Amino acid sequence: MSYKVAIVGATGEVGRAFLKVLEERNFPISELYLFASERSEGKTLTFKGESLKVQQLPSNPPAVDIALFSAGNSVSKEFAPLFVREGAIVIDNSSAFRLSPDVPLVVPEVNPDDVKEHMGIIANPNCSTIQMVVALWPIYKKVGIKAIVVSTYQSVSGAGSEAIEELKRQTGELLQNREITKSVFPRRIAMNVFPQVDSFDENLYTREELKMLFETRKIFHDPNIRVSATCVRVPVFYGHSEAINIHLGDNLSPNDAKELLSKAPSVIVADALDYPTPIDVAGKDEVFVGRIRRDMVFDPGLSMWVVADNIRKGAATNAVQIAELLHSLALV
Amino acid sequence: MSYKVAIVGATGEVGRAFLKVLEERNFPISELYLFASERSEGKTLTFKGESLKVQQLPSNPPAVDIALFSAGNSVSKEFAPLFVREGAIVIDNSSAFRLSPDVPLVVPEVNPDDVKEHMGIIANPNCSTIQMVVALWPIYKKVGIKAIVVSTYQSVSGAGSEAIEELKRQTGELLQNREITKSVFPRRIAMNVFPQVDSFDENLYTREELKMLFETRKIFHDPNIRVSATCVRVPVFYGHSEAINIHLGDNLSPNDAKELLSKAPSVIVADALDYPTPIDVAGKDEVFVGRIRRDMVFDPGLSMWVVADNIRKGAATNAVQIAELLHSLALV
Repeated sequence: MSYKVAIVGATGEVGRAFLKVLEERNFPISELYLFASERSEGKTLTFKGESLKVQQLPSNPPAVDIALFSAGNSVSKEFAPLFVREGAIVIDNSSAFRLSPDVPLVVPEVNPDDVKEHMGIIANPNCSTIQMVVALWPIYKKVGIKAIVVSTYQSVSGAGSEAIEELKRQTGELLQNREITKSVFPRRIAMNVFPQVDSFDENLYTREELKMLFETRKIFHDPNIRVSATCVRVPVFYGHSEAINIHLGDNLSPNDAKELLSKAPSVIVADALDYPTPIDVAGKDEVFVGRIRRDMVFDPGLSMWVVADNIRKGAATNAVQIAELLHSLALV
Repeated sequence: MSYKVAIVGATGEVGRAFLKVLEERNFPISELYLFASERSEGKTLTFKGESLKVQQLPSNPPAVDIALFSAGNSVSKEFAPLFVREGAIVIDNSSAFRLSPDVPLVVPEVNPDDVKEHMGIIANPNCSTIQMVVALWPIYKKVGIKAIVVSTYQSVSGAGSEAIEELKRQTGELLQNREITKSVFPRRIAMNVFPQVDSFDENLYTREELKMLFETRKIFHDPNIRVSATCVRVPVFYGHSEAINIHLGDNLSPNDAKELLSKAPSVIVADALDYPTPIDVAGKDEVFVGRIRRDMVFDPGLSMWVVADNIRKGAATNAVQIAELLHSLALV
């Protein structure tokens, strides 16, 4: 069995990672369509040594089995239903459908069975949420988690290729004492940090912070879990880091948590006084956990440091894992 | 009344800030001694337009009224008692004496009366602690605070001039695709972050994180307040940022907290959807607070974002304020 696959948003950071991950994991593909905006038409991308042309996204999409979307909310809203109408299952990396009751929001290590409920669209969660729930789910299953306080250290790649360029350009300008120009981010990112990822909601939280709350509740099937997030952009190219403090439902020692996580799928636990950093995990598919220790506020509680490549496990890899899940369950 | 003042560690980041802040605030000085290690002997530093020679720290220090120390724990341990013996009050920026029961640990906006109990040495708190307690004290006084969860985004200047050089050098190496060299920090800091400030304690917390716990307890005179900190180094030159979540003793709305803080000494509150960033506060003496909002975990609780210049309010300015306090209370 092999599939007709379309990538929508193929030239973006996540789009190109889709290609790489599909190739690395040898996902069974019979035909591959690459779509992007008009601007990118005619560009070529390489898949398994073959050059493929990027086409402008047509209003009459071809019939494919699986469409991987990462082209922003408005493209997903408009085009995902058209692909579904033609018979595709859409795995959507935007936030457009994540909280829709009839759209499963899936992290394969956590809630794989939810894919079965799909009605054409399956949503890929937010990058910061994915790495957090992969690291916390084994603990949640074992002793329960009542509350999560999380502060993020998010790389610029989450905001796309232009944001990567902005960090590079501003850093050069800074080192050369030139005027620092700004076009993507609301504040200077070179040698700076700022607590705003995505736009603000009325309650003074950013949408990114609210995603971490509402998506975690949906993925864990737990409408009562509390999540208080502060999402911060840092001058790092790839890899999001998170300082996480959790209030446990029952006792779990740092050592037991470490042992539990070291057996968990897609989790790699660092040695006692070691810890992962973004540059260590860039390009990798696992979620890296370090500094597991007893929390000083929550009792029982734990603190930990969680790092993952936001473009890989935080986006492309998770989406391809969902496709693999559909394949293995014969749902596609 | 004017004073004989000595600066120990005059050529370091904080030492040079001592000079600047003493000059800016026009602290009454009759004589100024600049001491540093042998390496710096013969260097000159400018104070009020005058060139002053840096001398090697002598084992027989001169009799001064006030000695401002910022030369590390071992220098403080050895030399602070010698200066005290000669009649000085030592204001010490190292962590050597901070938790000693007979040494006041003072943030003038919080516990000014504690200076009265000094026996020759007054300790200046840790930079991350100072900015946190300045921002939280008005709230603590009003409704009480039971617990604090804090994650920091700490600039490299907290680790001294060589750390600033390391960030500059590594960033240049990175942009030019050269090999990245490392000498000060345990991990690469250019375009990276890592959760280690200071060394590790047996309980898997870093000393910086434990300082935030134990120093806050001492400054607030509250042995029961809980503080769970994760201290992280980020590629920023000056200015520490903190994501803070607090569990309140009683209700306080975000608006009331904002109003309270906007009237508090040394605190500047940002407008609703605005927020301070490290590059905005570098060189300033105040503590900047933004993103005050209802916490999603603690009830009643608040979340906020607190930024200050770690070399100024986090070190030199706070020490000079302590000297001013001694002056105004006629304790020197």
